[in-house]
Amino acid sequence: MHKEIPYKIYLEETELPRHWLNLRAFMENKPAPLLHPQTLQPMTQEDLSEVFCVELAKQELDDTTPYIEIPEEIRNFYKMYRPAPLVRAYCLEKALDTPAKIYYKFEGNNTSGSHKLNSAIAQAYYAKKQGLKGVTTETGAGQWGTALSMACSYFGLDCKVYMVKCSYEQKPFRREVMRTYGANVTPSPSMTTNVGRKILEEFPGTTGSLGCAISEAVETATGMDGYRYVLGSVLNQVLLHQSVIGMEAKTALDKYGEKPDVIIGCAGGGSNLGGLIAPFMAEKLQGKADYRFIAVEPASCPTLTRGKYAYDYCDTGKVCPLSKMYTLGSGFIPSASHAGGLRYHGMTSTLSELYDKGLMEARAVEQTSVFEAAERFARVEGILPAPESSHAIKVAMDEAIKCKETGEAKTILFGLTGTGYFDMLSYEKFHDGKMSDYIPTEEELAKGFAGIPEISL
Amino acid sequence: MHKEIPYKIYLEETELPRHWLNLRAFMENKPAPLLHPQTLQPMTQEDLSEVFCVELAKQELDDTTPYIEIPEEIRNFYKMYRPAPLVRAYCLEKALDTPAKIYYKFEGNNTSGSHKLNSAIAQAYYAKKQGLKGVTTETGAGQWGTALSMACSYFGLDCKVYMVKCSYEQKPFRREVMRTYGANVTPSPSMTTNVGRKILEEFPGTTGSLGCAISEAVETATGMDGYRYVLGSVLNQVLLHQSVIGMEAKTALDKYGEKPDVIIGCAGGGSNLGGLIAPFMAEKLQGKADYRFIAVEPASCPTLTRGKYAYDYCDTGKVCPLSKMYTLGSGFIPSASHAGGLRYHGMTSTLSELYDKGLMEARAVEQTSVFEAAERFARVEGILPAPESSHAIKVAMDEAIKCKETGEAKTILFGLTGTGYFDMLSYEKFHDGKMSDYIPTEEELAKGFAGIPEISL
Repeated sequence: MHKEIPYKIYLEETELPRHWLNLRAFMENKPAPLLHPQTLQPMTQEDLSEVFCVELAKQELDDTTPYIEIPEEIRNFYKMYRPAPLVRAYCLEKALDTPAKIYYKFEGNNTSGSHKLNSAIAQAYYAKKQGLKGVTTETGAGQWGTALSMACSYFGLDCKVYMVKCSYEQKPFRREVMRTYGANVTPSPSMTTNVGRKILEEFPGTTGSLGCAISEAVETATGMDGYRYVLGSVLNQVLLHQSVIGMEAKTALDKYGEKPDVIIGCAGGGSNLGGLIAPFMAEKLQGKADYRFIAVEPASCPTLTRGKYAYDYCDTGKVCPLSKMYTLGSGFIPSASHAGGLRYHGMTSTLSELYDKGLMEARAVEQTSVFEAAERFARVEGILPAPESSHAIKVAMDEAIKCKETGEAKTILFGLTGTGYFDMLSYEKFHDGKMSDYIPTEEELAKGFAGIPEISL
Repeated sequence: MHKEIPYKIYLEETELPRHWLNLRAFMENKPAPLLHPQTLQPMTQEDLSEVFCVELAKQELDDTTPYIEIPEEIRNFYKMYRPAPLVRAYCLEKALDTPAKIYYKFEGNNTSGSHKLNSAIAQAYYAKKQGLKGVTTETGAGQWGTALSMACSYFGLDCKVYMVKCSYEQKPFRREVMRTYGANVTPSPSMTTNVGRKILEEFPGTTGSLGCAISEAVETATGMDGYRYVLGSVLNQVLLHQSVIGMEAKTALDKYGEKPDVIIGCAGGGSNLGGLIAPFMAEKLQGKADYRFIAVEPASCPTLTRGKYAYDYCDTGKVCPLSKMYTLGSGFIPSASHAGGLRYHGMTSTLSELYDKGLMEARAVEQTSVFEAAERFARVEGILPAPESSHAIKVAMDEAIKCKETGEAKTILFGLTGTGYFDMLSYEKFHDGKMSDYIPTEEELAKGFAGIPEISL
C-alpha cells in the first residue's frame, strides 16, 4: 500500500467496532478468579451481582467468549465522539529528528477528556437496562467521575462520586463539570461512610487514595436500594469495553498497511493499556504476529516494576473481592503525585498475568521527566496532554530517540488517553520548578507488602 | 442524495480548503475604509504596516480578490486539528422533539479550545516570514491568547499577551496553558504601558475591557524593535482566515445534499460569525441562494441591536485606526459578564455593513438563559460549550422550538466555537443561582455614544 498517510486518520462511523474484544478468551493462562473477601472462595455471578449490575457481573466472569456485541444504544452514544482519531505524529518525529514513525490513538476528544467514557456509557447502559435508580463510584484524577456523570445524565441515572481528596483539591473545576452533568461529588475519605470515618480517624491528614474511595463507594451502593457500584478501571469488564480503543487503532493502521513494532500505554489500573493492546495481544497470543508492549507507570507508584504478584484486596477498606495481581499492598498510600489517575496500588489481573508471563514489559518514570515530555509534546503536536497520558509520551519519545541512535525506523504506537485542561495547577508547579520526584523507599514498600494476605489456591 | 447522515461529518485531509474566501470581494457596498486616528484619512498599507505585518496589512485592505491561497505551512498546521467536524445534533433534535434538522460546526477540538487558532497560525506565519522576533496581543476570555501562544510556539516567535483583568482572575488556568506554550501574560489594565497607567488612574477598580487591552498591546508592539501587533477578531484579515470554518461546513453539507435555511453564530468582534457565513453570504450576494443569518450577542453588550452605525475608535486608548461599525462607543465598559469573548464595544465592519443593509439579523440574549441552554446542550450532546458559543446554542434552540410550533422542518446550522473547560467558575455561579443578568440602561448607552466622534466622509 502506498497511500499517503494523513495527520489524523478518522474511521467512518460505519467502521465503528460492532464487538468488544475479550482478551482473556485468547489467553491460555487465564487471569486468576476474583475471591470473595470473607470466604476467600472464587466469586460467583450471584456474589458479584450484589455489587455490580447483572450483565456486568456476567462480563466480569466470562473468559471464554472472544467477541461480545456492543448494544446499539451504546454504539449510538459512541457515535457522538467516536471513532477517535489515530494521529500520525509528524511534527514530533521532526522535532526528535527520528527515523521512527510515531502514532498515537487520541482519546481526549470528548468532554470527559479521556478514554474513560468508553466504559462509563456501557456500565450506565446496563444499570439503566436493569432498572436501577443510580450508581456510585470513585474517581482519582476526575476523568472517570466526569465520564460517568456524562453517561448517567444521558440515561437519566443518579450518580454519586467519591473523589480522591488530593484530586478534589487540585482540580476544583472537575467537580463543576460533574455538577453540570448532574452528579453528586464528595471528597474521599469522607464522614459519610463507616470506612471513611475509620480511615480519617487513623490517618487524619490523609490526601486519600483510589483504594479508599472505592471502599466508600461500594459501602454506599450496597447500603441503598436500586443502586450498584461501578468502577472505571482494574476490572475485566472495563478492559473489555476499552478494547474499542485498540480495535479502532488496528483498523486505522491496517488501512494504511502499518504495523506497530512497539505499543506503549500508561498504566494505573490498566484499563487504557488493556484496551489499546487488546487486538494486538490477541494476535500475539495466537502466534499471528509479534509486538512489544510497554506499560508505563509512575516511579512513585511502581506496581509492576516493584510490586508483588499475589492475591490482594482491591480497596483499602477490604470490602471488595480479592484479585490476583501485581500489587504494592492495599494499605500502600502513594505520595500525592500529579497523575492522580495512576495512584492505584494494584494492576488489572489480565495485564498482571501477561506481564508475569513475559508477554509485556514495564517501565517506571519520574514525574518531572514526564512533564518535560508533556510540554515538549504540547508545543509540537498542539495537544495539551494529561499527566497520566504523558507517561506514555515520555517512553514513546525515549523509544523514538533510541531509534535515532540505532538508525532503526521502527513504528511506535502509543495511547494518548486524555487532555490536561484540568491539570493546570500541576503544570504551574512544573513551570515554577516546584515539582519534586518521589520514589518510595524499600522500607515503605515493605510496609505495604506486609498487608498483603497470604493466600495460595 | 440519500446517503445516511452520520453524527459527525469529517472531511478528508485532502478536502481542507486551499483558499480563504474574502467576503468583501463579493459585496457591492464595501465596508468603509479604516481611518488613521490622527489624520482621519483612510489608512494606507504603509500606515498599517507600522502596526501589522506587511502581508497582513495587504490582506486588511484587499476588498477585491475573492479567494486568497492558504500557504502550505499554514495548511500543514491546520492538518493537526482540521478539518473540524460538522455535527448533526441528533440527540438535541430528539430532546427538543423538533422537526428541524440541527447542525453545528464544532471548532473546539483543539487545545486553544476555539476557532481562534485558524487566524492565530496565519498571523504567526506572516510574522515569521517577515523575520520578526515576536508579536503582542490582547485576549478576553483567553481563547485568542491561548491560540496565539500555540501558533507562536510552533514558529518559534515570542508572544506577549495582555489579558482582560476580569478574565485573568476568572480563568487563572488559562494563563498556565499560555505559559506551557511559552507566552508572557499580563493582566490589563497594567502599569507596563502609558495607556494602562492612565486608565488605572482614572478607573482604579476597573475589571478591564478588550478595548483597553488592545491599546496596551499596540503600545507595546510599536515601542519595540522586531515586534508587531496581532488581533484575534474585528479585522478584515481575521474574517478572511476564519472563512475556513464556513467553507468546510459548506463542503460537508453539500456532500449530503443539505442546505441550511438559517445560519446562527455568536458575535463579539464578529470573527467566528464572519467566517461561518462567508461562503453562504457570498452565494446570497450573488443571488445564487438565499439564507437567513442571525448574529447573537449578549444583552449586556448589545452592539448590533442597540448600537450606532458610525466611525469609532477600535480601542479605549484611541491609538488604533477608526472603523465604521456598529458601536456602543469606545468608552463603553460592559459589565463583567461570563462571556468575556463577547465584551467588545464594536463589531467588525463587514458584518456591520451587512447588518445595516438588512442582509443579516441580530438578537440579544441574557446570560442565565444562555447557561440554561448550555447545560441542556452539554447533557444531550456531550460537549461542554463555552459561554460565548452558548449564545448561538440558545438561539438555535429557540429556532428549533419555533419549528416544533409551526411544524416546519427547517435546517439550522450554528457555530459551536469552543469548549467551556476554563469557564467552570461561571458554571459554578450558574449552578449556585448566583448569576445575574445585566442590561445597560439608556443612560449608560448614551454615555458611551457621547464618546463616538462625529465624522462624515
